[in-house]
Amino acid sequence: MDKQQLQDCHERIKPFIHNTPVLTSRLLDGIASAQLFFKCENFQRMGAFKMRGAANAILQLPEDARKKGVVTHSSGNFAQALSLAAQSLGVPAFIVMPSSAPKVKKEAVKGYGGEVIECEPTLEARELASEKIRQEKGATFLHPSNDNEVILGQGTACKELLEEYPNLDAVFAPVGGGGLIAGTALSAHYFGKDCKVYGGEPFEVDDAYRSLISGKIETNNTINTIADGLKTQLGDKNFPIIQKHVEQIIRVTEEEIVQAMKLLWERLKIVCEPSCAVAFAAVLKEKEQFANQKVGIIISGGNVDLGNLPF
Amino acid sequence: MDKQQLQDCHERIKPFIHNTPVLTSRLLDGIASAQLFFKCENFQRMGAFKMRGAANAILQLPEDARKKGVVTHSSGNFAQALSLAAQSLGVPAFIVMPSSAPKVKKEAVKGYGGEVIECEPTLEARELASEKIRQEKGATFLHPSNDNEVILGQGTACKELLEEYPNLDAVFAPVGGGGLIAGTALSAHYFGKDCKVYGGEPFEVDDAYRSLISGKIETNNTINTIADGLKTQLGDKNFPIIQKHVEQIIRVTEEEIVQAMKLLWERLKIVCEPSCAVAFAAVLKEKEQFANQKVGIIISGGNVDLGNLPF
Repeated sequence: MDKQQLQDCHERIKPFIHNTPVLTSRLLDGIASAQLFFKCENFQRMGAFKMRGAANAILQLPEDARKKGVVTHSSGNFAQALSLAAQSLGVPAFIVMPSSAPKVKKEAVKGYGGEVIECEPTLEARELASEKIRQEKGATFLHPSNDNEVILGQGTACKELLEEYPNLDAVFAPVGGGGLIAGTALSAHYFGKDCKVYGGEPFEVDDAYRSLISGKIETNNTINTIADGLKTQLGDKNFPIIQKHVEQIIRVTEEEIVQAMKLLWERLKIVCEPSCAVAFAAVLKEKEQFANQKVGIIISGGNVDLGNLPF
Repeated sequence: MDKQQLQDCHERIKPFIHNTPVLTSRLLDGIASAQLFFKCENFQRMGAFKMRGAANAILQLPEDARKKGVVTHSSGNFAQALSLAAQSLGVPAFIVMPSSAPKVKKEAVKGYGGEVIECEPTLEARELASEKIRQEKGATFLHPSNDNEVILGQGTACKELLEEYPNLDAVFAPVGGGGLIAGTALSAHYFGKDCKVYGGEPFEVDDAYRSLISGKIETNNTINTIADGLKTQLGDKNFPIIQKHVEQIIRVTEEEIVQAMKLLWERLKIVCEPSCAVAFAAVLKEKEQFANQKVGIIISGGNVDLGNLPF
C-alpha cells in the first residue's frame, strides 16, 4: 500500500469521521520525561478508531455489493463501527455476536442500526454464522483488522496526528488484531520525518511480540488481560507490514496497564479503554529510551463499562 | 466591569491558561433536542476553570504585594488553582485548609507549590487562620469567587466559547460561589449576540435560586449534594451581576445530576465533576425551552475521586 492510497482513503472517509483532538499534559510529560501527544480516538464517532477502517471498507465496495450489505463477527468496537458506518451510508449491516456478549453491546449495535445475529460463543460458530449470512444475503464479509481497506482507514489517525505535529520522533499504538498498528506504521513511514512506530502489548497476550521473533503468526493460549480489545491475533495482511515498519513491541504487565489507565483518567481527564493505557504504559516502561523525545500515543477508544472499573 | 476589562484580563492570563477544546456529540444533541457545545474546562491547567480567576487575581497585584504572597481558604479547586498560578508567577501561596480535608487534596496543593496551613473545620477557624497569615506574612487575601478580578478571569471561558461559536442562543454554567456564573454572564453580555445565560443549581443547595427571588443573598441550611463544588453561597460582588445578567436559575435533583454525569462520561468520554453535570442536567430538565437552539455548557472541572464514583 502506498502513500497515495492513504491520502485517497483519508479524503474518502473525512465526511464520516471526526478529526479528533490531540491532548497534552505537562504533568504526564514530567512523569515520562518526554513530550507526549495523545491522539484522542476515544472522541471518534462511536467512541473508537475502528470507525475509520469500517467507513473506508464500506466506501470501497461497488454499488451492488453495498446494497446487499456487510457482515462481520465481533462483540467489540468493530461491531458498532461497522453498524454506524453502514447506517451513515444506507448499507445493511449484519453483526454476528456470541450469545454470551453483554446486552449493552448488543443494544449499542442495534442503536446504530446493525442487525444482531446471535451464535454460540466459539470461533467456529461465529465463522459459520457469518458464512451463512454471506451466502443467504450476498453480504460482503469484512474482517475487523486483517483487511487492507481497514488497515488504510485505521492509519488515518496517525496521519492526522502527524499533520498537526509533523516532527514526532515516535508513535505508540496498542497491538490487538494488528489493523491499527499496521496502519499507524504505514502513515508514520509515508508522512513522518524518521518517525518510528512502537507497539504496546500486554504480557498476557503477547502473540505479536512472539510473532516478530519467530517470523510467523503466533497465537495466545490464554487471554487473561484487562485490555479486552487486544485478545485477538495478527493476520496475513497486516503481519508483513508490522514486520517491515514497526520498530519494536514493548510488553507491559496488567498492573502497569491499570496504573497507566488511572493516570490517563486522573490527569488527562478522559474516559478511555484499558487498550489505550497499554500504549501509554509501554512508553513509561521504556522511558529512558524516549527521554526528551516527541512521542505520539494513539488513544484507541473510550467504550468502557463505568460500573466495572479497575480502580 | 466593562468589555475592555474582560478583553484585557483575557490577554493578561493567556500565557498561563489553556484555550480548552469545545466538544460536541450528535447523540447528546439528540437527547437534548438542541445543538450542544461543551466548553471543557476539565482540560484546563490543574483541571478546572478556577485557574483563570486565580491567575488574573495574582497578575493584578502590584509587585510588592506579589512578593509577600497570597492567601486563601479553600479545600477545593481554588486552593490548587491559586497554588499553581502563584507558582507559575513565582509568588508564595498560603492555603488554609480544614484538618479534615482529604489527604489527596492537601498533597495536590503541595504538588503545585502551595503551603498548607491546617485549621479546625469551621468557617470561623478558617477565617481566623487566613487573617493571621495576612497579618504575619503581609500576604493578600484572595476570595475564590467574590472578587472582581476572579470574576473577570472566570468569564474568559465563556469568551473563548463565543469566539469559537459566536451564535450561541444560551450558555449554561453551574452556580456555586457565583464567580463562574457572574463572569459567564458578563462575557455573554459583551461578546454574545443576544446570548442568554442560565445557571444550574442543585435543589439541595438552591441558595442562588432563592436569592434571586428574595433580592438578598440567601444561605443554605443543609448541603446534602454530590456537587461538592456548589455548596458555597453568593457574595456582594457577584450577586448584583447575577441579578442583572442571568436569565434564570434551573434547579435539579441529585438523581438528575448523577444521570447527567453518567451521560457525559459515557457519551462525551470525559472525566468531569458532578458540578458540570448540574449545568447539563439543567438543560435536559427544561429541554422544551431550548429546543433546536445552540446551547453552550461550561464543563467546570474534572477533579474527581475515581475510587468514589456514583455509578
